[in-house]
Amino acid sequence: MAETIGAYLVRRLAEEGVDHIFGVPGDYCLTLFSLLEKSPIRVVNTCDEQGAGFAADAYARIKGLGACAITYCVGGLKVANAAAQAYAERSPLIIISGAPGISEQQRNPLLHHRVRNFDTQLRVFSELTVGAVVLDDPLSAANQIELMFALAKRHSRPVYIELPRDMTLAEIGPATSRALPKEESDPETLAFAAAEAVDWISGSKHPVILAGEELHRFRLQRPLMQFVERSGISVAATILGKSVFPESHASYIGVYEGAAGLEEVREYVERSDCLIQLGAMMTDINLGIYTANIERRDAIYAAKDRVSVGFHAYDEVRMEDFIGALAAHRWEERKIEPYQHPPRPAAQAPSDQKMTVEALFRQINEFIEDDMIVIADPGDALFGASDLYISDRAHFLAPAYYCSLGFAVPAALGAKAAAPNLRPLVLVGDGAFQMTGMEISTVARFGMNPIIIVLDNDGYGTERPMLDGEFNNILRWRYAELPRVIGSGLGIKANTEREMAAALEKAHANDSSWSIIQVMLDRHDCSPALKRLTAKLGERVR
Amino acid sequence: MAETIGAYLVRRLAEEGVDHIFGVPGDYCLTLFSLLEKSPIRVVNTCDEQGAGFAADAYARIKGLGACAITYCVGGLKVANAAAQAYAERSPLIIISGAPGISEQQRNPLLHHRVRNFDTQLRVFSELTVGAVVLDDPLSAANQIELMFALAKRHSRPVYIELPRDMTLAEIGPATSRALPKEESDPETLAFAAAEAVDWISGSKHPVILAGEELHRFRLQRPLMQFVERSGISVAATILGKSVFPESHASYIGVYEGAAGLEEVREYVERSDCLIQLGAMMTDINLGIYTANIERRDAIYAAKDRVSVGFHAYDEVRMEDFIGALAAHRWEERKIEPYQHPPRPAAQAPSDQKMTVEALFRQINEFIEDDMIVIADPGDALFGASDLYISDRAHFLAPAYYCSLGFAVPAALGAKAAAPNLRPLVLVGDGAFQMTGMEISTVARFGMNPIIIVLDNDGYGTERPMLDGEFNNILRWRYAELPRVIGSGLGIKANTEREMAAALEKAHANDSSWSIIQVMLDRHDCSPALKRLTAKLGERVR
Repeated sequence: MAETIGAYLVRRLAEEGVDHIFGVPGDYCLTLFSLLEKSPIRVVNTCDEQGAGFAADAYARIKGLGACAITYCVGGLKVANAAAQAYAERSPLIIISGAPGISEQQRNPLLHHRVRNFDTQLRVFSELTVGAVVLDDPLSAANQIELMFALAKRHSRPVYIELPRDMTLAEIGPATSRALPKEESDPETLAFAAAEAVDWISGSKHPVILAGEELHRFRLQRPLMQFVERSGISVAATILGKSVFPESHASYIGVYEGAAGLEEVREYVERSDCLIQLGAMMTDINLGIYTANIERRDAIYAAKDRVSVGFHAYDEVRMEDFIGALAAHRWEERKIEPYQHPPRPAAQAPSDQKMTVEALFRQINEFIEDDMIVIADPGDALFGASDLYISDRAHFLAPAYYCSLGFAVPAALGAKAAAPNLRPLVLVGDGAFQMTGMEISTVARFGMNPIIIVLDNDGYGTERPMLDGEFNNILRWRYAELPRVIGSGLGIKANTEREMAAALEKAHANDSSWSIIQVMLDRHDCSPALKRLTAKLGERVR
Repeated sequence: MAETIGAYLVRRLAEEGVDHIFGVPGDYCLTLFSLLEKSPIRVVNTCDEQGAGFAADAYARIKGLGACAITYCVGGLKVANAAAQAYAERSPLIIISGAPGISEQQRNPLLHHRVRNFDTQLRVFSELTVGAVVLDDPLSAANQIELMFALAKRHSRPVYIELPRDMTLAEIGPATSRALPKEESDPETLAFAAAEAVDWISGSKHPVILAGEELHRFRLQRPLMQFVERSGISVAATILGKSVFPESHASYIGVYEGAAGLEEVREYVERSDCLIQLGAMMTDINLGIYTANIERRDAIYAAKDRVSVGFHAYDEVRMEDFIGALAAHRWEERKIEPYQHPPRPAAQAPSDQKMTVEALFRQINEFIEDDMIVIADPGDALFGASDLYISDRAHFLAPAYYCSLGFAVPAALGAKAAAPNLRPLVLVGDGAFQMTGMEISTVARFGMNPIIIVLDNDGYGTERPMLDGEFNNILRWRYAELPRVIGSGLGIKANTEREMAAALEKAHANDSSWSIIQVMLDRHDCSPALKRLTAKLGERVR
């Protein structure tokens, strides 16, 4: 029997390693959901499409490809924001949307979920993805699907596939074309660029590597390690790229993010006469709201969109090949000033003092174990997390550039599906939790065991120092009571250090279910990282 | 002192009667929020931007203009779906988004919340609104604002205003132009069209009026009443237009929606040899999934986008003028076959039987009072609501065309703000509640008193008869426990008719706070309206 468009799409997802798909069903995509349910792919239906989008984004970051399936417009437009985040932060997310059947669309009727024209949603997603198609032609559908998959992987960015419901069971034509021509560096230019970089690095006194998220997205962690071990150069990470290099490695120095990072790291990095930026997007957050002091003339820069040595840009050189060349080079042995790690704060017995953000991150630092994945929501949860020590077998995930609040709880869904052996440790502000936190319902339904720490500072804490008003206040939920609504899980409220320590212990023991800890913080307290940043920004004004 | 762009925008909103604005603050719109807070406009900050969009949409439908304010992309793209619904269902919603300052945007940096280019969000909203601008020029800003306001009111559809943060306090130039040329019908064509319609109606045996939502949106309820009272013709409403004509009026016959409506109404309407459709969009839901049997040759049609008499379309005639002409006509007295109202079901003492959807709507019918506004979420809450009797002083609100699940709870926020004297009665499915229902937090914070009835049939009930699977299942929340999380409110679970009757009574008495009633329904039960529709669709197949 010939294959249908829907069956082809589902089979190809599975072949690409997508073993979970996130979404919410609707009448324009029910047949697709039915096909998915009968496939080896597990369907995780979330409370709201927003949650599905974030979960699939997190899954895609870990697995190298992820997918969500939703219905037309009322579902699709709810993942517009998640698509935008995936675009900005290079997450290879496949968005599959149902749509009215082609035969239904004739005579232009006012079918439910329609906005303006039937192509409105396609046009919106054309702005938010690297490829957007409607599978309205069975003959070309296979090529279209292959092209979208290839684009998502090539750019590590989202694509949009719209499937009109009456096409789901239409017989598909064969895939006839190889989707994308291979990208290749010009060999001569590459050799020249690599030689110039090698000369620079070899002649420099204080070279430092700054590693970013693209190394993870484009699977370049192995050449990075080779480069580091052969050259002996130390490595800092951007906050967006945190955990891209194993943090217990002797050459790892910490997160660099301008004034928001540790002073010792900042000083060591900014003193470099040859900063080698690899796969690191120069965003405002990565650069500590532009408190970073990096001179382009002293920098070697290799990212997906640009390779340059000082002011020399190399147009026909791919990041992958350039980093490969640095990794393959036989570096001469030389003495490089080692980074002096400041002493890691000693374990402190928890006191009966009220909880502070500083104490919270200190306790979490002690708490993190191998086989955890720390997921930080934007806000002080993210700033504070830059000081966390993430071990080699643990991971770190945060939307540290686009910064959409409410990512972390749904991302725990995606992370657990992508890496079942990791336990998600979610750090989320109270404001962000109120956006999407009820996806704990989905967490519970699928038997996942994240530990969710709600930093409850009674409102939008990172906004208060900028400009305060009633609008930064929110209602204080009793988050620890949520298990009563959900019917499972462990909820604890922690006021003091001692209570927090006990809460972490209980949550740790609650291995078969989810846990939520409401940490009561002063509304004007903030993390050491945010304090450092504020102090530095203050210096500018003086 | 000269006025700033932000101050002008806020002042003009207030002058247009917008006394509440819904939103979530972010760093790109903090200054605007601060201006709003100091103005007479009340800022209602919701848990998530999605809730703000829906609340502002509901507010706009009632007041004739509404607004939401959000930050760039991470906020704005979350209201894309609400904007789409406002577009589809003609709600005059002003979306105000913060953005990076113009000076920050120079040199094209990677600022947080940015997607692709700085105009990405503008381009998205160009697809979803009747006007989209960036206020990047102080000299033209006033004209731009006036144009957007005028477009929103002219089309009763959403507009998008983007305010870069460094423009908020920039001095604004004067408004120099009248925004939109007046729309006028061609007098000769109008006279001809009206004369043809009058002849048709006068010569018909069984004229019937079908009234829709545009009569409400464009403030044509008074001419409608005049037309009805002078002509003696009976009126049905579409489900989207329900309550546009007072339901206790002798000439009102009920909701017409093909097979989904009451059989008596369907028969009376479809027997018409002159169906006068006024302001009624011919959508699939309005037409009972196309079970409606309406012949264009027998219909007079006047809507915002088209006026026609049978097959004669009149290009230069506005709906408003055409309906005005019908209202102004001196209709001759004539005998029109009256509609025989089927006996209203007698009040029934509640039994100890398990709750059914039929019993639920029967009990709600007894419960509705003057000064309530019934808000129905899509799904069986909406189908069932078509049989409710809405009194003259009560109101009905539902997204019955675009049908975005999760509208109703945030809409209660908007409705209460727009009409403080009305008490919202929210009918919402369990699946829809899980999307946006936590906006009860905002409801509680602002001291509102809606009664929320969760139709808990353990999943996506309206999808099960279409195609069932695991994906239609959701976790059953203990909705009645939500007051423990929120810290206020009344939560009740009702299993039987008697429990439901008691719950309604308690909720009614809980006048100073919000109430939620979790009604336990069989997962395969559905409303009489949906049963009628399913039976009719079944006939087609046989």
